[in-house]
Amino acid sequence: MNTQNLLDPELPGTDPLGRFYAVIPAGGVGTRLWPLSRAAAPKFLHDLTGSGSTLLRATYDRLEPLSGEKVLVVTGDAHRDAVCLQLPEIADSNLVLEPEPKDSGAAIGLAAAILYLRDPSTIMGSFAADQVISPVEKFQDAVREAVYTAATGKIVTIGIKPTHASTGFGYIKTGSPLHVKGAPSAQTVVKFVEKPSEAVAEEYLVSGDYNWNAGMFVAPVELMLHHLEINEPELYEGLMEIAKAWDTPERVAVKNRIWPTLPKIAIDYAVAEPAADAGDVAVIPASFSWDDVGDFAAIARLNNAKEVDAVTVMGEGARVFTENSSGIVVTDTKRVIALIGIQDVVVVDTPDALLVTTRAHSQLVKNAVDGLKAKGDTDVL
Amino acid sequence: MNTQNLLDPELPGTDPLGRFYAVIPAGGVGTRLWPLSRAAAPKFLHDLTGSGSTLLRATYDRLEPLSGEKVLVVTGDAHRDAVCLQLPEIADSNLVLEPEPKDSGAAIGLAAAILYLRDPSTIMGSFAADQVISPVEKFQDAVREAVYTAATGKIVTIGIKPTHASTGFGYIKTGSPLHVKGAPSAQTVVKFVEKPSEAVAEEYLVSGDYNWNAGMFVAPVELMLHHLEINEPELYEGLMEIAKAWDTPERVAVKNRIWPTLPKIAIDYAVAEPAADAGDVAVIPASFSWDDVGDFAAIARLNNAKEVDAVTVMGEGARVFTENSSGIVVTDTKRVIALIGIQDVVVVDTPDALLVTTRAHSQLVKNAVDGLKAKGDTDVL
Repeated sequence: MNTQNLLDPELPGTDPLGRFYAVIPAGGVGTRLWPLSRAAAPKFLHDLTGSGSTLLRATYDRLEPLSGEKVLVVTGDAHRDAVCLQLPEIADSNLVLEPEPKDSGAAIGLAAAILYLRDPSTIMGSFAADQVISPVEKFQDAVREAVYTAATGKIVTIGIKPTHASTGFGYIKTGSPLHVKGAPSAQTVVKFVEKPSEAVAEEYLVSGDYNWNAGMFVAPVELMLHHLEINEPELYEGLMEIAKAWDTPERVAVKNRIWPTLPKIAIDYAVAEPAADAGDVAVIPASFSWDDVGDFAAIARLNNAKEVDAVTVMGEGARVFTENSSGIVVTDTKRVIALIGIQDVVVVDTPDALLVTTRAHSQLVKNAVDGLKAKGDTDVL
Repeated sequence: MNTQNLLDPELPGTDPLGRFYAVIPAGGVGTRLWPLSRAAAPKFLHDLTGSGSTLLRATYDRLEPLSGEKVLVVTGDAHRDAVCLQLPEIADSNLVLEPEPKDSGAAIGLAAAILYLRDPSTIMGSFAADQVISPVEKFQDAVREAVYTAATGKIVTIGIKPTHASTGFGYIKTGSPLHVKGAPSAQTVVKFVEKPSEAVAEEYLVSGDYNWNAGMFVAPVELMLHHLEINEPELYEGLMEIAKAWDTPERVAVKNRIWPTLPKIAIDYAVAEPAADAGDVAVIPASFSWDDVGDFAAIARLNNAKEVDAVTVMGEGARVFTENSSGIVVTDTKRVIALIGIQDVVVVDTPDALLVTTRAHSQLVKNAVDGLKAKGDTDVL
C-alpha cells in the first residue's frame, strides 16, 4: 500500500479535504449514566447538555460542514430506528449495523474497509457519537489540520490539551513538530500511555508533553488497513470479506455470517499503538473543550441547567421541590421529586428505575448495573 | 346530666362493658409520611407495619373483641369507599362522613351526640385509626379498666408509660389512685401538658408522674356532652341538631347543611382539658407499646422489613440494589431502585412522587407538602 507523499499533502489536482469521510461509531451503553443511559437508550441518543440535540445529532452536525453527506455511522442493530430518526440523511449503505458488539477494532476497521473499496484514496475521520465539544470551530480547525497531516501518510489523533491531572483518560506523549503545510500544530507521537495514577497525571500535566487521548483520529483508509492487516490478519480478512459484499445485494447475509466470527479487539491495540511504534502516528494537540460525559457530575457541569437552590435539575418539565439540599436531579418523568436535608445527592429518575447516589460515588454506578445484571434484573439495563 | 355513681361502676343489673361503643376517628392525611400517605390515600389506609392489615383494619380488630359490632367510624367523605372496603361490617348509620375537616371536637362530639340519642347510658371509647399497638391483650386490658373507671363518671384517658424523653408528644400528669373496682390502675389526672422541651421531657421521664397522651379516651357520652355544652355551646348545638336527624331520612341533608358552620376545635380544648380542671378526668397508665407512626424512621422501626445490607426495604415486590448504603426504602412501585454509597437515606417511591431525605430530616417532610401546596402541585398531595 502507498504510504508515501509525506509532508506535502497537496497532490496536484487534489485537496485532501475532498477525500475526507466522517465515521461515527455510535456504540457503548454508557453504563456510568445508568439508568438514564441503558442498552435500549444509550448515551448517544440522549440530549445530555440541554442543547436540544442528542449527542449523536450534535456529532453529525459538527462534522457535516467538513464532510458534507459523506458520513458513515456504525451502531448496534437494536438502534437502527433511533439512529435513522436522529440522522435521516444517512443512506442505508452508510449505516453499519452490528449484529453484536465486537469492540472498536471491528467497527472502525469495517468502516475503513468499506470506504477503501469505494475509493482507496479516502481519508477517514473517526469520532465517537457520545462526546461534547465546544467551540465547534476549534474542533473543525483541528480536524482540518488532521486531514492535511493524514494526507502526508499519517494516522493522526486529535489530542486534548489537559486542563487538570485526570486519571480517567489515556494520554498521548507528543514528540517533535512535523511542519506539515496547512497543519502547523502537527507533531509526532512518541507513544500512547494508559490511564495514569494521580502522581503521574500531575507530572504529565506539568511537563506539557502529554495530551488526553480522546479516541479521535483521522487517517488514510489505506494506512489503517495496512496496519490492521499486519497486526490482526484474521480481523482484516473478515472485514474485507464483508466490505466486498457491502455495496451488493449480499451485504446483510455476508455481514451476519462473518461478523460473529470476528475477534474482539480495540482499535487502539489493533492499529493505533503498533502504528505509533512504527512512527506512523501524528497528533494535533487541540484546545477546544472536550467532555466524554463520563458520569452525572459531568452532566451537571455541562448543562445550563435550572438551579433549584443548590440542586442542579435536568429534565423537561421537572417538578422538583428542595429544602436544605444540594446535588443533581436528572429526571425523564413528570413525577414530583422532593429533596429534604440531603447533601451532594445524585437522583436519576426514570419510569422504571431510580438511582440515588452521591456526587462522589457517581463513578460507581457501573457497579449497580453489574449487580442488577447478576440478579437478573436485565429489563432495566 | 348524671355524673354521679362514682367509684363503683357496677349498677345493679348492668355490666359497664355492655355499654361500651367504640369510635374510630379516621382522619388526618399523615403529612409527615408523604408521599406514601396523602389526601387520597391517608396513613390509616396503609399497612405500615407489614402485618397484612391497614392501620384502620388493625384498629377495628383490636376493638371488636370489646365492642362487638358496636363501632362507629368518623372519616372524610372522600374515604367512604376505601373505608367500606376495609370495614365491610360498618353499617351506613355508623359511618360518619365529614363533608370537610372540622378537627376532632366536631368529629368525636358528633359521635358522642349520635350515641347519646340512641342510648344515653353509652360509654364511648375513641381510638384514632392510625396507631400501632402491641400486645393487643394489654391494650384491651387497659380499655376494660378505662370502661370501669368511666362508669364511675369520669372521662378516662389511656396514658402510655414513657420509654424515653420524647418531645413529640403531649403528657398527662397523674395524681392519686382512684381505687375503682375492676380498674386497679386508675388514677386522677392533675393536668394535661403540651409537648415539652428536651430538658422538661427528661424531668417528666425521671419523675414517673407523667404519661404520654395518646389521644385515647373512654367516657360516658353524657359526660362528654356535658362538658362540650359548657365549653363550646355553639358546637354542641350544631352537633345535637345533626344527631337528632341522624337516624332519620334527613341525615345527609342536615349534616351537609350544619357541618360547614361548625367551629373548628380540638377535642382536647373542647372537652378534655376543661374536664380535667373540673376534676372529671382519670387516666389508666398503660404499658403496651404504642407508636403513632409519625415519620419514616417509625415505619422502619415497626417493620419486620427485609434488610438489604444496611437498608430497610418496605414494599411488596420491591426491587432494590444497594452498595455501601444505609437507610430506608419505601416503595409502592415495581421500579428498580439502586442506592450507591449513600448513608442514612430515606427514599419513598410512589408512582407520581418521590421523596429523598435522611433519617434525621424525616420529620421535616411536612415542609415539602407545604411547599408543594404553595407551588400549586396539589395533584400529588
